[in-house]
Amino acid sequence: MKFLINRDLLYLNLNNISRALSNKPPMPILTGIKIEAKNNKLFLTASNNEISIKADISDKRRLQIEEEGVVVVPGKYFIEIVKKIEAKEIDFSIFEDNIVKIIADRSLFSLNAFEKDNYPQVSFNDSNTKINMDVLNLKQLIRKTTFAASLSESRVILTGISFITEGRKMEIVATDSYRLAKKFMVFENEYPDIKAIIPSRSLEELSRIIDEGDSNIEIHFSPVKVMFKYKNLWFQSRLIDGNYPNTSNLIPTDFLISVKFNKTEIISAIERASLFTSFDSSNIVKLKINSDKTIEIASTNNEIGAVKEEIVPLECSNLLNFEIAFSSKYFLEALRSFDSTEISVHFTGEIKPFIITGQYDVNLTQLILPVRIS
Amino acid sequence: MKFLINRDLLYLNLNNISRALSNKPPMPILTGIKIEAKNNKLFLTASNNEISIKADISDKRRLQIEEEGVVVVPGKYFIEIVKKIEAKEIDFSIFEDNIVKIIADRSLFSLNAFEKDNYPQVSFNDSNTKINMDVLNLKQLIRKTTFAASLSESRVILTGISFITEGRKMEIVATDSYRLAKKFMVFENEYPDIKAIIPSRSLEELSRIIDEGDSNIEIHFSPVKVMFKYKNLWFQSRLIDGNYPNTSNLIPTDFLISVKFNKTEIISAIERASLFTSFDSSNIVKLKINSDKTIEIASTNNEIGAVKEEIVPLECSNLLNFEIAFSSKYFLEALRSFDSTEISVHFTGEIKPFIITGQYDVNLTQLILPVRIS
Repeated sequence: MKFLINRDLLYLNLNNISRALSNKPPMPILTGIKIEAKNNKLFLTASNNEISIKADISDKRRLQIEEEGVVVVPGKYFIEIVKKIEAKEIDFSIFEDNIVKIIADRSLFSLNAFEKDNYPQVSFNDSNTKINMDVLNLKQLIRKTTFAASLSESRVILTGISFITEGRKMEIVATDSYRLAKKFMVFENEYPDIKAIIPSRSLEELSRIIDEGDSNIEIHFSPVKVMFKYKNLWFQSRLIDGNYPNTSNLIPTDFLISVKFNKTEIISAIERASLFTSFDSSNIVKLKINSDKTIEIASTNNEIGAVKEEIVPLECSNLLNFEIAFSSKYFLEALRSFDSTEISVHFTGEIKPFIITGQYDVNLTQLILPVRIS
Repeated sequence: MKFLINRDLLYLNLNNISRALSNKPPMPILTGIKIEAKNNKLFLTASNNEISIKADISDKRRLQIEEEGVVVVPGKYFIEIVKKIEAKEIDFSIFEDNIVKIIADRSLFSLNAFEKDNYPQVSFNDSNTKINMDVLNLKQLIRKTTFAASLSESRVILTGISFITEGRKMEIVATDSYRLAKKFMVFENEYPDIKAIIPSRSLEELSRIIDEGDSNIEIHFSPVKVMFKYKNLWFQSRLIDGNYPNTSNLIPTDFLISVKFNKTEIISAIERASLFTSFDSSNIVKLKINSDKTIEIASTNNEIGAVKEEIVPLECSNLLNFEIAFSSKYFLEALRSFDSTEISVHFTGEIKPFIITGQYDVNLTQLILPVRIS
């Protein structure tokens, strides 16, 4: 096995696939990167059982394969080597079957390879159940929903996001049972019906790799996995097995009172109002509608002190003696998911879930459960 | 106690004195900041027993003292509040003797104060034993020496740097007994003789506060402490008690062989050569002079692999069968302390200390002890 490759090209691709390397993999060999030279192409693969990524390099001007072969190199060290190389070109070869030799200018690295036969078979297969999406749309979808998924493994299903298509409609839901993010989309084409639960962590890793360019991404669904095809990359994630809870009845449609805020203003006010509670992780703030239609946001921490913020909303649908308490962390994360400059909070009752919408964020709903206050 | 102050002015000064706040202070009250309004001035003090910093604010356009007084506020929370305030002006007052009220636009914070009488007396006194230095010179001095001081408390004296003036000469030494950094300076004026050991951590904190502007800094020495007067700040550190080891005979003057390198090139080569050893903290690399006057730098890690770097030096004084091993970490830190583009390494023997000098860094010497290799 022997090839010459442009340093920057190799480094870029290593960086992308490194998202599937984990420090504590299920098997030691998964700390390695599989490198395959075949048919004038170079394939790099990394996997941690949950996510697998493969890069396919076939740039004739910047890659020259002199001898085909397969090797599994220690991922972390190989990436560090390529990162530190300043030479334009890297000469990669194998001697004695399991020692990798890397030459770049006056540097010579020898790196002990893994036993390549121990690397698990990772297959990246196309599926007929596939959809096409704009990369920017997908990135936004991820940013606006995954934060609401659960981080706790106690209900594994809630660590995923629910992905459902029906005809030309798509619905994405994430919830940790205290809050919920829901996004609709309508496609130009009709797609096959899909029902899948994708780990939110996988989507967050994917989001770090895909640029905001105007390229397209193909999403292939199979019964147990989903594969994203983007540029020269295959990004594959396992799906979460099970039935996602039905959330369609959770979102209220009749509101007691609706308040419209400038997003930046309400975010700043909540950040200040929660200064003393964010340290003790309770994060609870109280929101009260004053008789002059100003909104008061307050919190108290007996040891440290108290904060009271007053904010003049852009609109307040009606005047009502109303007070509600909720997690400032959940509220802030929900607010930040909107691109709109004006957001509306719709309340249904002092101990009932409320929702947030934004003037320009059509089809995005954030829901938060309040907490009871004594 | 009551005053109005410009938010940015207060925040800047809080940031500066916060360098003396520690998370684990010797007494709980030292998590607090002492605020004193007196004679149309505001004084902010923070201390952690090792370092104390006082800021003196007296800007008539941006500070209005309406009632004098003293209070000790929880440092972390007070800084967070001021950081998050977007209003231009902050209204600060006390009610019920120990509750601080902070008003800024439509925000109202109340903050429980500490019992002010528990705050230790911190005095910042001028001394006749003082010197004047250019801020840029002092910052460089700190950067070029403190890294070589010890981090271990087992020999406390080596956690400090030795600061000696005699007539117009000043000598700064830092050593952890495996390496040594030494810098000379010559003043324009003659100063009183000084012999002090300043904690290197204190100097590093000081360095973060002082800008690279062309201002001056006054350094006042007393038997147990040193005070730096800079702009509106007093920065005070305790001194380390004891006799600093005599290092004047340690630096060799007769050399077996001297090699001159391009600094960037040798740094890159060492970084690559130590890639496999920096993970296991041994950090040992071998340097060898080849018969063609090229220099080989190599390291081996049985588990991972080996690296061999070849570098063509700018000059090599003579040809000799020579091989030496040392910590790449120490060597890199020493190299990075130079501003010169060309640095010279002077060897005296395979198991004897070697020194590094730089063409433009007059009066700076870095010394490193090699390690024995089998």
